[in-house]
Amino acid sequence: MAFCPFSHRVRLMLTAKQIEHHKIYVDLIEKPEWYKDFSPLGKVPALQLTGVKDQPTLVESLIIAEYLDQQYPQTRLFPTDPLQKALDKILIERFAPVVSAIYPVLTCNPNAPKDAIQNFENALDVFEVELGKRGTPYFTGQHIGIVDYMIWPWFERFPSMKINTEQKYELDAKRFEKLLKWRDLMTQDEVVQKTALDVQLHAEFQKSKTLGNPQYDLAFKGTP
Amino acid sequence: MAFCPFSHRVRLMLTAKQIEHHKIYVDLIEKPEWYKDFSPLGKVPALQLTGVKDQPTLVESLIIAEYLDQQYPQTRLFPTDPLQKALDKILIERFAPVVSAIYPVLTCNPNAPKDAIQNFENALDVFEVELGKRGTPYFTGQHIGIVDYMIWPWFERFPSMKINTEQKYELDAKRFEKLLKWRDLMTQDEVVQKTALDVQLHAEFQKSKTLGNPQYDLAFKGTP
Repeated sequence: MAFCPFSHRVRLMLTAKQIEHHKIYVDLIEKPEWYKDFSPLGKVPALQLTGVKDQPTLVESLIIAEYLDQQYPQTRLFPTDPLQKALDKILIERFAPVVSAIYPVLTCNPNAPKDAIQNFENALDVFEVELGKRGTPYFTGQHIGIVDYMIWPWFERFPSMKINTEQKYELDAKRFEKLLKWRDLMTQDEVVQKTALDVQLHAEFQKSKTLGNPQYDLAFKGTP
Repeated sequence: MAFCPFSHRVRLMLTAKQIEHHKIYVDLIEKPEWYKDFSPLGKVPALQLTGVKDQPTLVESLIIAEYLDQQYPQTRLFPTDPLQKALDKILIERFAPVVSAIYPVLTCNPNAPKDAIQNFENALDVFEVELGKRGTPYFTGQHIGIVDYMIWPWFERFPSMKINTEQKYELDAKRFEKLLKWRDLMTQDEVVQKTALDVQLHAEFQKSKTLGNPQYDLAFKGTP
């Protein structure tokens, strides 16, 4: 599903490591019957390893990311130190409350809780503070790394709120100064650029979802 | 929290690897103020590495387990092959639907959905089938390993349903033949034995929880 942030994570990994692959997009509403043979719970993304004996399929974006990093070590994205690796994985897990707080707003749910944005910003503070603590341009240091890529898909989608919300919501320039600087840096990354969808498309997709008829094919607008 | 299955996972790891440690039990209802300094979301377990610079604290049982396995490699519990490791981690994730289906019954929730047990058994079938496919006594092969330990805490707790449910629920001996054989084998493991709490205690704890007053201290009954 082209708009799925978890699938986006895997596309970032595959692109960063220049791994040849073939994409099959799945309609999450009218799910094809055969998809369960690859992803038993019907979740996206799923990555079939066609070059491996028995062609097994992996699911769960973080598990896929870690597998690809070990299997294609030319550019390491996870820290090699076990402790730093654990700390980075914990930081990635800390992004879940950010996502769950903003999800109703991001997806234009008319019943979004009144304090959704406040909870979102409080959860996001953790990342603003962490960037300050680490004192590096990227979460993973001087170079882009796993934390950066794993949380990026949502930062690509946040600006759609400026289009879709009544208050034209944007991240506060002062409160999230470091994160916004990081965001600018991220948008210059070649891998981020190669996997990007336009903010207008994200906004349009979210609106179609709210209307109960998600237009997954919007991602292919203009492609023959 | 002595009855927490996720904390139990970490106790199994620490015991299997004979890592010296000191346990502090946390009352999850009256959570001590200082606990947030170690586990920002207040979740258990949290493992502080007192022998490491800055004494960082790790959270999330699976992340802790993987860290300990890498840091104390004397007896490897995770597979070293990246693909098998990914597949085992995915299998461990597949246990989440088992837990969420049975949780209301296990915790004696009077409003447990009518189809809870049916959903639980359907989810558990995955593990019965997987043991058959692997054709080994343990999930991880001829020797006990990470999948076995990570799902074990719930198998220690399931028998409390025989005490606490009206229908004296037990796993069907035929449908779950392989899993029950595996369970018997697991109960003979020294690490499992060392971290075990009696089924009566589990049952009593769950009942106290249902009554709105969880008796965390039951675990220390009889200890001075």
